Amino acid sequence: MDKQTRYEKGLLKLSEVDGSGGHAVVRSLENIAPDLGKYIIEFAFGDIYTRETLSLKQREMITLTALLTQGGCENQLRVHIAGALNVGLSQTDIVETFIQCIPYVGFPKVLNAVFTAKEVFQNHAVTS
Amino acid sequence: MDKQTRYEKGLLKLSEVDGSGGHAVVRSLENIAPDLGKYIIEFAFGDIYTRETLSLKQREMITLTALLTQGGCENQLRVHIAGALNVGLSQTDIVETFIQCIPYVGFPKVLNAVFTAKEVFQNHAVTS
Amino acid sequence: MDKQTRYEKGLLKLSEVDGSGGHAVVRSLENIAPDLGKYIIEFAFGDIYTRETLSLKQREMITLTALLTQGGCENQLRVHIAGALNVGLSQTDIVETFIQCIPYVGFPKVLNAVFTAKEVFQNHAVTS
Amino acid sequence: MDKQTRYEKGLLKLSEVDGSGGHAVVRSLENIAPDLGKYIIEFAFGDIYTRETLSLKQREMITLTALLTQGGCENQLRVHIAGALNVGLSQTDIVETFIQCIPYVGFPKVLNAVFTAKEVFQNHAVTS
Amino acid sequence: MDKQTRYEKGLLKLSEVDGSGGHAVVRSLENIAPDLGKYIIEFAFGDIYTRETLSLKQREMITLTALLTQGGCENQLRVHIAGALNVGLSQTDIVETFIQCIPYVGFPKVLNAVFTAKEVFQNHAVTS
Amino acid sequence: MDKQTRYEKGLLKLSEVDGSGGHAVVRSLENIAPDLGKYIIEFAFGDIYTRETLSLKQREMITLTALLTQGGCENQLRVHIAGALNVGLSQTDIVETFIQCIPYVGFPKVLNAVFTAKEVFQNHAVTS
Repeated sequence: MDKQTRYEKGLLKLSEVDGSGGHAVVRSLENIAPDLGKYIIEFAFGDIYTRETLSLKQREMITLTALLTQGGCENQLRVHIAGALNVGLSQTDIVETFIQCIPYVGFPKVLNAVFTAKEVFQNHAVTS
Repeated sequence: MDKQTRYEKGLLKLSEVDGSGGHAVVRSLENIAPDLGKYIIEFAFGDIYTRETLSLKQREMITLTALLTQGGCENQLRVHIAGALNVGLSQTDIVETFIQCIPYVGFPKVLNAVFTAKEVFQNHAVTS
Repeated sequence: MDKQTRYEKGLLKLSEVDGSGGHAVVRSLENIAPDLGKYIIEFAFGDIYTRETLSLKQREMITLTALLTQGGCENQLRVHIAGALNVGLSQTDIVETFIQCIPYVGFPKVLNAVFTAKEVFQNHAVTS
Repeated sequence: MDKQTRYEKGLLKLSEVDGSGGHAVVRSLENIAPDLGKYIIEFAFGDIYTRETLSLKQREMITLTALLTQGGCENQLRVHIAGALNVGLSQTDIVETFIQCIPYVGFPKVLNAVFTAKEVFQNHAVTS
Repeated sequence: MDKQTRYEKGLLKLSEVDGSGGHAVVRSLENIAPDLGKYIIEFAFGDIYTRETLSLKQREMITLTALLTQGGCENQLRVHIAGALNVGLSQTDIVETFIQCIPYVGFPKVLNAVFTAKEVFQNHAVTS
Repeated sequence: MDKQTRYEKGLLKLSEVDGSGGHAVVRSLENIAPDLGKYIIEFAFGDIYTRETLSLKQREMITLTALLTQGGCENQLRVHIAGALNVGLSQTDIVETFIQCIPYVGFPKVLNAVFTAKEVFQNHAVTS
């Protein structure tokens, strides 16, 4: 029962945070690595995102920073920039999060993140 | 005058955020790369940390995440864990920031950050 | 009940793989981030290490490679080099795993891993 | 003569592991950095891949892990996922290798690797 | 006045190094993160690139190496490979810089950089 | 005969660049991974460092940048900072190389490199 609960809790949280983008990622794993989708839902969203102490806005800010910093994760940044907007961070908050990273990771990765955000913001404007 | 202002603004902000730890870093650069200390004060603290939109608590949360994610920056983590406490994040907030990183960077770097925090918290308790 | 099962399954697997080194890591988290220890047991060892398809030897070989490649994880390498010996990889297998990484990550990180192994092998010889 | 031997040994091993994909990489270097292609054949394949102790399956498993972990190497992953199939790893082995990396490098890079594998498996099905 | 000077100095240096490519990057930031463009001009080009001791050729060689090594920065590599040509490095110097990195970062990232250079050299030939 | 030549060429170059520090690294590999030492001599120093086009000063500048950028390679930085001094780079050149990296990799890794240099310069002064 608990396993179901973790999955269910995770699925609700995934919907709340990443909306259709998160579900699309999980669905695209179905015919290659369905357990990977299950772990994302159960562990990342069921166990971690549902914890107390930090708000969803804070959690997305941290996630954006971790994605920007490791580099090469533009696809995941795309999903979580949309997620950050979903949970109430403004476009300005998101760009400012990236700017705060400059002294710690340098300009190149910050530029990659900002250009990814630019693209997401434009699509978001079109679809809303 | 503006250059002085950036330096002065940065020095104030450095004191506010990193306290004695930040000044110790800058001082230890004096006889090898004084300009590096100057850029940290002027650019990181004078230009970036003084920006609006995000609070100092948010900025330290982002900095901690960027340091944890790139790895091998235990010395800088040490200074900024103390800085995070200085600007009002609790020990629980800091540990929770690291836990939020697990799905995005894996356990090893999170463990390194948590053990660094453990050490800083212990010293902090002793000296306060 | 399932949660207990994941924890119990993970604890058994942790004992099998990392022996006392793994338990020491979890124990040292108790007074700072006990949930981190719980996730390592439940998720890393209960969910992932217990999966089928690959043997424990293969899993440790993969883990060693992931730790070597990201760099700055000497503490985790130490635990998993001992773990690799526990599950039946020979000292030669471990060194050869590191040598296979040279073309993909370069000499410096391979040197760091080999010197960590040298240290673990020496302690292992002394204590066995 | 020995130099020729290393090159010849490497060329044979490259054909055995990476098949046409590896040769295509080397050929595309001809008019820009031919020595780079030579070093890949002589050193990576002639010196390292021909060593004893580990099987080609184990070597590809290690290579896949090193490529996944450092990130941003989707082109090389593509060649080595095909290589892993060539030397006898199954699609399930490859996906499972990536899943074993989750606790050590987090979900984003694992997702990148799995989606790259999905693409390679589809092309492989079409061409075989 | 000094701020203007840093910006003006940086703009001149940016033109000297990266030519139209650098200006295009800054312009594309205008409607999303104009301050990021300002910092690149003021700090990266106004403060750092204008320093003494090293020549522009040496500075571009260092920048190319830093971009290659962190990975996932192909867009920035593209701009700085063109920049390296602008300040007088030859195509051979650039490729040789990448080859010197092999023992320290491995083949995959070097391959990514060389293929990026191949593309830039081809466009450069067409437009000059 | 050619193999011997690569080894001999590499050994001479290693002596020229890294002096006693490089030999100490190779010697410390003897009873754990002697082939790793052989590859460093044959490939890194025999094949790569002996190439034309770039000077040894340029090669060490590139190596220092690659080591700084990947992080966690303080031991290798130590050897190559001494190597850079051996081939004629000044202390100022070395620090300036690190400062040029700030916009591309951020302050933390630059600080790590500068503090490593500080230590090497002090020992160098004592022993010369």
